[in-house]
Amino acid sequence: MSTKAVQLVVAYDGTDFGGWQRQKNARSVQEELEKALQTIHGHPVKLTGAGRTDAGVHALGQVAGFFSDIPTIPVERFKVALNSLLPKDIRVMSASPAPGDFHARFDASLRRYRYFVLCGSRQDPFRNRYAWCISRQPALAKLNAMAEVLVGEHDFSAFASAGDSSLSRSRFVQESYFWYEGESLVYQVAANAFLWRMVRSLVGTMLFFEAKTSSQAEASDLMRGILEGGDRKKAGPTAPPEGLFLWNVEYGARLHGHRRRKGQERGDTMAADEVS
Amino acid sequence: MSTKAVQLVVAYDGTDFGGWQRQKNARSVQEELEKALQTIHGHPVKLTGAGRTDAGVHALGQVAGFFSDIPTIPVERFKVALNSLLPKDIRVMSASPAPGDFHARFDASLRRYRYFVLCGSRQDPFRNRYAWCISRQPALAKLNAMAEVLVGEHDFSAFASAGDSSLSRSRFVQESYFWYEGESLVYQVAANAFLWRMVRSLVGTMLFFEAKTSSQAEASDLMRGILEGGDRKKAGPTAPPEGLFLWNVEYGARLHGHRRRKGQERGDTMAADEVS
Repeated sequence: MSTKAVQLVVAYDGTDFGGWQRQKNARSVQEELEKALQTIHGHPVKLTGAGRTDAGVHALGQVAGFFSDIPTIPVERFKVALNSLLPKDIRVMSASPAPGDFHARFDASLRRYRYFVLCGSRQDPFRNRYAWCISRQPALAKLNAMAEVLVGEHDFSAFASAGDSSLSRSRFVQESYFWYEGESLVYQVAANAFLWRMVRSLVGTMLFFEAKTSSQAEASDLMRGILEGGDRKKAGPTAPPEGLFLWNVEYGARLHGHRRRKGQERGDTMAADEVS
Repeated sequence: MSTKAVQLVVAYDGTDFGGWQRQKNARSVQEELEKALQTIHGHPVKLTGAGRTDAGVHALGQVAGFFSDIPTIPVERFKVALNSLLPKDIRVMSASPAPGDFHARFDASLRRYRYFVLCGSRQDPFRNRYAWCISRQPALAKLNAMAEVLVGEHDFSAFASAGDSSLSRSRFVQESYFWYEGESLVYQVAANAFLWRMVRSLVGTMLFFEAKTSSQAEASDLMRGILEGGDRKKAGPTAPPEGLFLWNVEYGARLHGHRRRKGQERGDTMAADEVS
């Protein structure tokens, strides 16, 4: 039977999910999407996501792929069909044709995350699901002195969580910087792939040591020492999930790591263990 | 023992509450605030709210009052003290001294609500907790032709829910109009008081009949007929709670209805049965 590959861009409010990945005892985004795909197809359909976001983590531009054996549905119609079946905290933003051997996870060349921190004493009960609320206002220059240290290829063991099972902990970070948008402090980080809870470990560590250092040079040296030491115990606490958004995923030329070989189902490429 | 009256302005995300009012088997805003007040005072403290918002209804400017017997805490400090004890989906926006006989419910002269409707096909999983999402774009002129009919003193039986136990169903509506803010349709309504679920019945009815009428005159006549007929079955469906916000409460001169008499604990004033 002939099938066609479909690429979905998916946004979700992670508040009420146990995470992207299908799991026992918790609602997952993958399961909700697979249930809707099964309703449309009349049989189970396997869906693959680019990033396995954790419980409480949100997405604006998660990418997922599946193969459809229904020739009569134009690919673009999957957006409307899925949205009519999905709960309202998951929305398909687009559906488009993908290459015949498309793999949302192995083919992704770049994952970009944003982390939102709401700073200051202004009270807002409507932001706490979507930002980490702190009372102080961290100094941007010290934060960016630390964030810069991360750019490039490094072993990120210092920011890996206990449960991380990656074969290699080397990742290539292309973007890493903070800025303020009004009272929101935003951190953007993009890499070929991330270790489990790496973004939240980075954010928690940088905010922790920003408060404990008195200059950009001191902050930068301290961050370099933590990164090179490779010891998670030397880093800071893990930031809470509600501030984290999987912002988008790119499928351009892969600059770092290797493209999987044709026919490879489970690769040990650097992107294969993509989690957050 | 000498006590002082305190007026709180409270904002909350109603998503995870069974409503304002203390109840069995559900989390309530009143109970969370009373628990925090008890922690501060060391004994139970009774709190009164201006509007008994329903399950899922939000507030930006709910007003609540209580009497404190702690002379050493400046009234303004209750904001910080309560916020440090409260869950993050309730925030005290201000705490200020109130007249010695202050009653948040009986003294309120005006309640103002806003209802948000997100219109159109753009998908946004982050708005569904805070707006009613519909796919069409209702015509503003027809909506405002209907909304205008409500201004003034009327018997609102046609928009009362089955559970409403008000002695009188007459209310004075001072503001009633719609506008668009980008893709959001906003309805603002202010009155001395409201019947149970009256705002949601009004919104549901106006959106229902906007789609079924072809001119402003027809829409206006139809709405007047429903209002004057006093029959709930002739009105439209009740709009969902997630779009509704108690916007603010005013304590100015009471233009309609009567100020309670001194010493009156439970009045049958028009505002006494304030619910939404």
